Amino acid sequence: MRKIVNDKEIVLGVCYYPEHWPEEMWEQDLDRMLEMGLKVVRIAEFAWNKIEPREGEFVFDFFDRFLDLAYKKGMQVIFCTPTAAPPVWLTHKYPEVLNVSRTGVRYEHGERRHYNYNSPVYQEKTRIIVEQSASHYAPHPAVIGWQIDNELNCGIDEFYTESDTMAFRQFLKEKYHTLENLNEAWGTMFWNQTYLDWDEVKVPGPVPCNNINCHEMMDYIRFVSWSARRYCHLQSEILRKYLKPDDFITTNGRFGKLDNHKMTDESLDFFMYDSYPNFAYFPGMYDPAPDALRDRWNSKNLTEIRSISGNFGIMEQQSGANTLLAPTPKPGQMTLWTLQSIAHGADFVSYFRWHTCLFGVELAWHGILDHSGRDNRRVREVKEIFGKVRKLNNIAGSRYEAKAAVLKDYDNEWDSWNNFLTVDSDDHIYEAAQRTHTPLNYVYLYDGGTTEPLSRYPVVFYPHGMMMSGKRAKILESYVAQGGTLVLGCHSAYRDLCGHGVMEKLPGVLKNLTGIDIPEYTPVTPGDAPAFIRWGEDRLEAVCMHDQIQIEPGHEKTAQILGYYENTCYDDMGGLSVNQFGEGKVYYWGAGFTVETAAVFLKKLNAASPYEDTVSLPESCEIAVREKDGRRYYFILNYQREQVCITIHKEMKDLYSGDQIRGEVCLEPYGTMVLTD
Amino acid sequence: MRKIVNDKEIVLGVCYYPEHWPEEMWEQDLDRMLEMGLKVVRIAEFAWNKIEPREGEFVFDFFDRFLDLAYKKGMQVIFCTPTAAPPVWLTHKYPEVLNVSRTGVRYEHGERRHYNYNSPVYQEKTRIIVEQSASHYAPHPAVIGWQIDNELNCGIDEFYTESDTMAFRQFLKEKYHTLENLNEAWGTMFWNQTYLDWDEVKVPGPVPCNNINCHEMMDYIRFVSWSARRYCHLQSEILRKYLKPDDFITTNGRFGKLDNHKMTDESLDFFMYDSYPNFAYFPGMYDPAPDALRDRWNSKNLTEIRSISGNFGIMEQQSGANTLLAPTPKPGQMTLWTLQSIAHGADFVSYFRWHTCLFGVELAWHGILDHSGRDNRRVREVKEIFGKVRKLNNIAGSRYEAKAAVLKDYDNEWDSWNNFLTVDSDDHIYEAAQRTHTPLNYVYLYDGGTTEPLSRYPVVFYPHGMMMSGKRAKILESYVAQGGTLVLGCHSAYRDLCGHGVMEKLPGVLKNLTGIDIPEYTPVTPGDAPAFIRWGEDRLEAVCMHDQIQIEPGHEKTAQILGYYENTCYDDMGGLSVNQFGEGKVYYWGAGFTVETAAVFLKKLNAASPYEDTVSLPESCEIAVREKDGRRYYFILNYQREQVCITIHKEMKDLYSGDQIRGEVCLEPYGTMVLTD
Amino acid sequence: MRKIVNDKEIVLGVCYYPEHWPEEMWEQDLDRMLEMGLKVVRIAEFAWNKIEPREGEFVFDFFDRFLDLAYKKGMQVIFCTPTAAPPVWLTHKYPEVLNVSRTGVRYEHGERRHYNYNSPVYQEKTRIIVEQSASHYAPHPAVIGWQIDNELNCGIDEFYTESDTMAFRQFLKEKYHTLENLNEAWGTMFWNQTYLDWDEVKVPGPVPCNNINCHEMMDYIRFVSWSARRYCHLQSEILRKYLKPDDFITTNGRFGKLDNHKMTDESLDFFMYDSYPNFAYFPGMYDPAPDALRDRWNSKNLTEIRSISGNFGIMEQQSGANTLLAPTPKPGQMTLWTLQSIAHGADFVSYFRWHTCLFGVELAWHGILDHSGRDNRRVREVKEIFGKVRKLNNIAGSRYEAKAAVLKDYDNEWDSWNNFLTVDSDDHIYEAAQRTHTPLNYVYLYDGGTTEPLSRYPVVFYPHGMMMSGKRAKILESYVAQGGTLVLGCHSAYRDLCGHGVMEKLPGVLKNLTGIDIPEYTPVTPGDAPAFIRWGEDRLEAVCMHDQIQIEPGHEKTAQILGYYENTCYDDMGGLSVNQFGEGKVYYWGAGFTVETAAVFLKKLNAASPYEDTVSLPESCEIAVREKDGRRYYFILNYQREQVCITIHKEMKDLYSGDQIRGEVCLEPYGTMVLTD
Repeated sequence: MRKIVNDKEIVLGVCYYPEHWPEEMWEQDLDRMLEMGLKVVRIAEFAWNKIEPREGEFVFDFFDRFLDLAYKKGMQVIFCTPTAAPPVWLTHKYPEVLNVSRTGVRYEHGERRHYNYNSPVYQEKTRIIVEQSASHYAPHPAVIGWQIDNELNCGIDEFYTESDTMAFRQFLKEKYHTLENLNEAWGTMFWNQTYLDWDEVKVPGPVPCNNINCHEMMDYIRFVSWSARRYCHLQSEILRKYLKPDDFITTNGRFGKLDNHKMTDESLDFFMYDSYPNFAYFPGMYDPAPDALRDRWNSKNLTEIRSISGNFGIMEQQSGANTLLAPTPKPGQMTLWTLQSIAHGADFVSYFRWHTCLFGVELAWHGILDHSGRDNRRVREVKEIFGKVRKLNNIAGSRYEAKAAVLKDYDNEWDSWNNFLTVDSDDHIYEAAQRTHTPLNYVYLYDGGTTEPLSRYPVVFYPHGMMMSGKRAKILESYVAQGGTLVLGCHSAYRDLCGHGVMEKLPGVLKNLTGIDIPEYTPVTPGDAPAFIRWGEDRLEAVCMHDQIQIEPGHEKTAQILGYYENTCYDDMGGLSVNQFGEGKVYYWGAGFTVETAAVFLKKLNAASPYEDTVSLPESCEIAVREKDGRRYYFILNYQREQVCITIHKEMKDLYSGDQIRGEVCLEPYGTMVLTD
Repeated sequence: MRKIVNDKEIVLGVCYYPEHWPEEMWEQDLDRMLEMGLKVVRIAEFAWNKIEPREGEFVFDFFDRFLDLAYKKGMQVIFCTPTAAPPVWLTHKYPEVLNVSRTGVRYEHGERRHYNYNSPVYQEKTRIIVEQSASHYAPHPAVIGWQIDNELNCGIDEFYTESDTMAFRQFLKEKYHTLENLNEAWGTMFWNQTYLDWDEVKVPGPVPCNNINCHEMMDYIRFVSWSARRYCHLQSEILRKYLKPDDFITTNGRFGKLDNHKMTDESLDFFMYDSYPNFAYFPGMYDPAPDALRDRWNSKNLTEIRSISGNFGIMEQQSGANTLLAPTPKPGQMTLWTLQSIAHGADFVSYFRWHTCLFGVELAWHGILDHSGRDNRRVREVKEIFGKVRKLNNIAGSRYEAKAAVLKDYDNEWDSWNNFLTVDSDDHIYEAAQRTHTPLNYVYLYDGGTTEPLSRYPVVFYPHGMMMSGKRAKILESYVAQGGTLVLGCHSAYRDLCGHGVMEKLPGVLKNLTGIDIPEYTPVTPGDAPAFIRWGEDRLEAVCMHDQIQIEPGHEKTAQILGYYENTCYDDMGGLSVNQFGEGKVYYWGAGFTVETAAVFLKKLNAASPYEDTVSLPESCEIAVREKDGRRYYFILNYQREQVCITIHKEMKDLYSGDQIRGEVCLEPYGTMVLTD
Repeated sequence: MRKIVNDKEIVLGVCYYPEHWPEEMWEQDLDRMLEMGLKVVRIAEFAWNKIEPREGEFVFDFFDRFLDLAYKKGMQVIFCTPTAAPPVWLTHKYPEVLNVSRTGVRYEHGERRHYNYNSPVYQEKTRIIVEQSASHYAPHPAVIGWQIDNELNCGIDEFYTESDTMAFRQFLKEKYHTLENLNEAWGTMFWNQTYLDWDEVKVPGPVPCNNINCHEMMDYIRFVSWSARRYCHLQSEILRKYLKPDDFITTNGRFGKLDNHKMTDESLDFFMYDSYPNFAYFPGMYDPAPDALRDRWNSKNLTEIRSISGNFGIMEQQSGANTLLAPTPKPGQMTLWTLQSIAHGADFVSYFRWHTCLFGVELAWHGILDHSGRDNRRVREVKEIFGKVRKLNNIAGSRYEAKAAVLKDYDNEWDSWNNFLTVDSDDHIYEAAQRTHTPLNYVYLYDGGTTEPLSRYPVVFYPHGMMMSGKRAKILESYVAQGGTLVLGCHSAYRDLCGHGVMEKLPGVLKNLTGIDIPEYTPVTPGDAPAFIRWGEDRLEAVCMHDQIQIEPGHEKTAQILGYYENTCYDDMGGLSVNQFGEGKVYYWGAGFTVETAAVFLKKLNAASPYEDTVSLPESCEIAVREKDGRRYYFILNYQREQVCITIHKEMKDLYSGDQIRGEVCLEPYGTMVLTD
């Protein structure tokens, strides 16, 4: 069993930068952390120069001294590979390792992540620093695990160097084998882009109207993901050689153009997230609507992470203001956000960061301590959190419980063509689930996947699987045939995985499953009056796109139209259908999903509010449930700055106090509660 | 007489891409088109690789097979030169043919229009492909005409390669002969920019505040136009050698920095337009005002095209959604837009496109058929359109009838200095004409022009001829002297054609014509309270600019002030004057034109609503009249999604039904009607 | 004593470009100017080619002829060095003199200011042209002074050439001596940016997320200022060699990233400003609030200039419209703006410009004359101004009188991290001063400064000295100890001059002076409800940032909390404190300053409205007082387009009319009045 994310305890930690502080301060810092219940530190994240200050010159004693001290104190350490910020000596001597913009501007030192994954030189220098670091530090008894790099693809996720072009060709050759296949897949017949020679293939260049071949762009994004995964794997292969038994490899963050699921499967033991709920209060991000979800939206991000690792860690949990952009956490908010992470599956929560940095561009990103380093209100709150988390150790290893899932896939996520549809529906379904207290999971769909991950859920939404393959259709059919309920939205399966339109009746490979035919469709734009689809009592707005639905001949026995369009030129044409397929049912909703529409689906399909007989709570609170060995743990989270009251319908144990409670209970502003039955 | 745009019939066609589809599908496609009344296809627009798949290697059999089949079926073909998208093999081998941005970024393959007109290599490669295509395909009996390139200057109309600098010098030497003249014209004395050597002259470079010499910029825009025209002419010269008698040469679209009038005169038989009225419903373009003109604004574009070719073609007429941006045409809208084109002078309408492309960045731009290729509602609507258009053949060759015109010129259009004034007034005058049912023509003014094109119109607006020459002033004087009524707006003639201010009393070369003097002027900015000019009963807002008007001594007998400023510090100074000049009159309005001001001018000058005794119709409908051999054809177009009713005051023939009708008649939503007396 | 800005007379002048006009027009132009009271012309500002038309070829007779004529007519001349716009022959031959953008785009000729200060070649060419110009023209009796370059740092204030990198290294070596010091100061430990070799140090490069090392950026801005100052000094050193006694050296404008105070001390006799109050009416700048300050804000700019030179000149005083952007000055506004300049300390006002340029990108920037050159309303107004200014000669050399000051420094101005706070508070304090008729001065704080410049003021605001040094704290302590009243705002002294956070209790080096401790702080963002601090009767909004204030143990006798937070989670914690320190007091306000808060401070500290016993005037008028030899001159300025009335409480002399007046007097729209007692 791996250390930290296991089924023994919920662990708290903190990010620390020994190289930023006088060595004589280390001992006091570690003592203070341990006193507060912080048992793990992450170190060495950007410290290449502290190990290899000059090319080929390695110095280990600095971190040796730190690790020895940590070990003496009983502090566990997550060590990082420092590759997110190459030294100046390296980029100055080997400028080819530097990434360049699409218009050919080469990035320089002065920030971070200015390298490119595919540079042979950078790969070689990476191998050396990782080999040196791992072989020396991994055996140290204080070390319990490794973080690879930091926030892969954060900030910049496009790469246009000559090395990238070389690697892109390799990626494409592996995928397509021949130029003929590539020309076919990229539709190069369009606008006369046929390739005759592999040398003509490059990473996407600047084009006059920014309208480059979309199939090429799709493959380029897949290539970026492949490059980052390959780079991560290069490091994990080395680390594995030196890892002590039970030590782990992870990385942190979740950024664009990267298949984090595959990366985790290939290279990591589990995934870590960097959780900054206060982004919700940044100017420009803040939603003034009185019932806006704000920091509660972060649960959606955690749901994404949970789809990668059912139990995961938080490598960076926000613990202070960004003094330029977002306020200091209000009293109670640090606790709330920590419990939000745990409720969604985190078994390890490490605060970012111990001291606030005194220099560098992150000096406004406050840690637990302010610049002064003195004890403060947040120190006291961390102690209180530790007091609470200590009561939750039984929860470690338990799984978040959800009866409904949303199906996703990276192809549609990366498809710039229609993902506005996906993004909106995805947000609205999540919001509907939150407002109806319906815990939700995300499941990722792959061609090589099976039905199993789906069959745990009675109800599955796959809002707009616009790019779709026959293999994926088969997985969906199998899920429904076995009794699942699948909800599809407009424009499903109208393109293949190359992004080509399909020259057949819609919904293409889903025709058989849905039993319908879509003879016409139209986007809905601001010039159109609001249109509706009536479904029984409910008159639901039909947003974004209207697919006309009719029953495909031969399917009349199983399929029927449930709702018709109103107030459009599609009036009286089908807008919602259902088909009995094997043991299950598949709904086809001809439009995008609003919050209201998603909520109506959740209710009509009996997926909504599974715990309402146990706990009644106002819409403004979140409920999340983790389950282990038949026992449920109910997390109640109050995101409001006002007190709210809930009603507990059966006697349950309050894990903080140990009391058995029942009836109306009130939570303080930003208050949390964990119950078990 | 040229094929297609002639006086025999209104022809329908469609854009087709044989290279995108299996050959075995061609026959069925052609059969279906012909059955729907589509008698012409445009092909080969981006198909360079289908003719020259490798440098110097020519293959003709592909399109031969298509042309033979078309000929057999009775389908006529417009063949395109494929130069809008050079092959990858060409740009890869000769990167100098690629255009670069002003900041030096070279565009790469992956889109289209990434070449520069002035590259000697690209010109040579163009000569070869056009020579090969024309010599081989032009004789084919199925071919009836040629399209040069595609949408010249579309998307990108700036060119900054070394070839462009070389050509710019050539252009400037031809224009100025000596550097002394160039220095004078460009006012290089200002900010010390004097040129001593032609080598110092380049296309405009990046400058610190984007405030480059405005006279240079003006000449640069003229140079871009000259480059595109020269490139078009290079192709037409070759095509002419091989054209069958009566076959035609055209090109399509109307884009910036290009004198389409001169290009047509030099190189084409007539001009074609690409008509996408649904742009009006794009997000960001959609105007929610209840009486907004929306797709009716497209009539303004058609009016522009008519000023180039009195009878023209529509090479691309929108026939489907852009699923990312604009809805599928509502039932009736395809008909409406087709009739809008015909009403304004189109004798040929070709839909874009037959199939919706299955790949490439235009796969959201829907054609008549959706991706599936099946028959659909739009197929049925095209058949109905054909049924209607068949009744309109007598209209072919007739001319759009207008009693009022707006005078324009490319110098003021290209002048970035004051064209905000021109653009607003131009829009407002057009809108006033539409709302008052006053058909309008545009006439373009050149130094070498004559009075003749103007003298067809009793009333001519020349809203803000800010850049003006003595030659143009003479044309205006001659028009007025012969009895015309000319309406001028503020800031007329205050600069010469180099863009220099004039060191004389304003309105400069128009002093004698207007009989006035403008001792002071001021722009109107948001800090100013609304000001007015009273003209009899009407109190008209004086927007944008205020020219103080007084009668120039010596002109008191013919000139008078008609209106005075109110609510400004120019109160009681002249804001509107009229001068009797020869047989005619010239009005000088001291401000910009609002819709209301333009409408008042149209009414007071008896130009408004010329057909109101024949047909009364609500403001929301357009009326357009074409005339041939003394017979008038009245097009009534309903742009509303509601039914509207009109009143016909004398018995007329409804061309669709053949019935004689009179009195109140109602048009369906998006309905059209064509009447003749 | 220097000519022009002396204590003899208020002088009017005008900018003139002899090279733009036929020589035969010069005499008439000079005669007209002199007749209007314009006694000084500025010339040759961009006329390099008129002196050195080819490299090394010097021609002096052109300006000799002009100077001889000027001398004959009695016109005085300010001669300019022409370096703001290098000739095309120079930049074409030596492209290294051209500045480049941060992304490596080299600017080309066609505008101005496209050179870099640090190019050795440009410095050499500058030396030559200045030496040649000065040695030839400085002795001429018509010449009375010199302008160096034009508007240094205007439009562009970033430089990224190789020459800049070389000079940046020199600057840093002089500042830090060793790389170790530089690494420390720049916090290069953060994100692993340690430098091992000076060759690795460059001007800031492009980085992926535009988040470059902030300490490096701060030093880069200091370097830009140093570069501009050094370049200015290079010229002044040469000019001094040739200057006649009493002739002066100046430059004009006030732009970013430039320490104008140091530059003036090092190289100039006094500073000049280019005053364009009509910017306030540009679209996008115009504030429609009925009581907005608009052109009255220009007084704030003049206050800045006065902090550089107590008596200064206006080199360019707006005299016409920008026909693209802002209206022609309304009748009276030219007078108003001229008097605004004089009221704030200008003893010389030169209009921009005589003729409006007929060509070049400034042809919309109107001068006194329009393009026509004829006499106009503004000519008449200048004559009237001259009539008034003639009565004001006794005022020359008098000093603007202020009892309150705002302390500023360039470090905080250039700090991109928190200067949004500074900027808002600074604006609000100025606005409060204007609305309460409280004349204000600015004082700049330097490490090497003394208490003396502060001790003239009973009350001093230093709103947010976020970057602070011990030396500056000492100056503040000394000021207060001697009896001054100092008002500080939130976040004072929380970083050092490198921009590092300080690892001590806040407010850091101001702890002793303020007697307080700030245990916690938070930014205020849109998600927070409005919070307040109650101070006696006043409930003042606490914007931007909340510093919790408590009395530091040991200071209880002198320090106290005056106000507490309301409506935040800091409720009942201190928000405002005062400390008795020596003879004076220091207030610490825990938030940013609104207009209301600043006004309350001015009133409670008895700084507001010092002249209300002498003159009562509505809020919409400005009062400014100049004092000399014990005599006060009261300027009353009406910025409204309506007449306003004031009450004079004792008999005073109206300087325009010479009358003794008292009681209610009314000013015309845009009217001005100058009184003395």
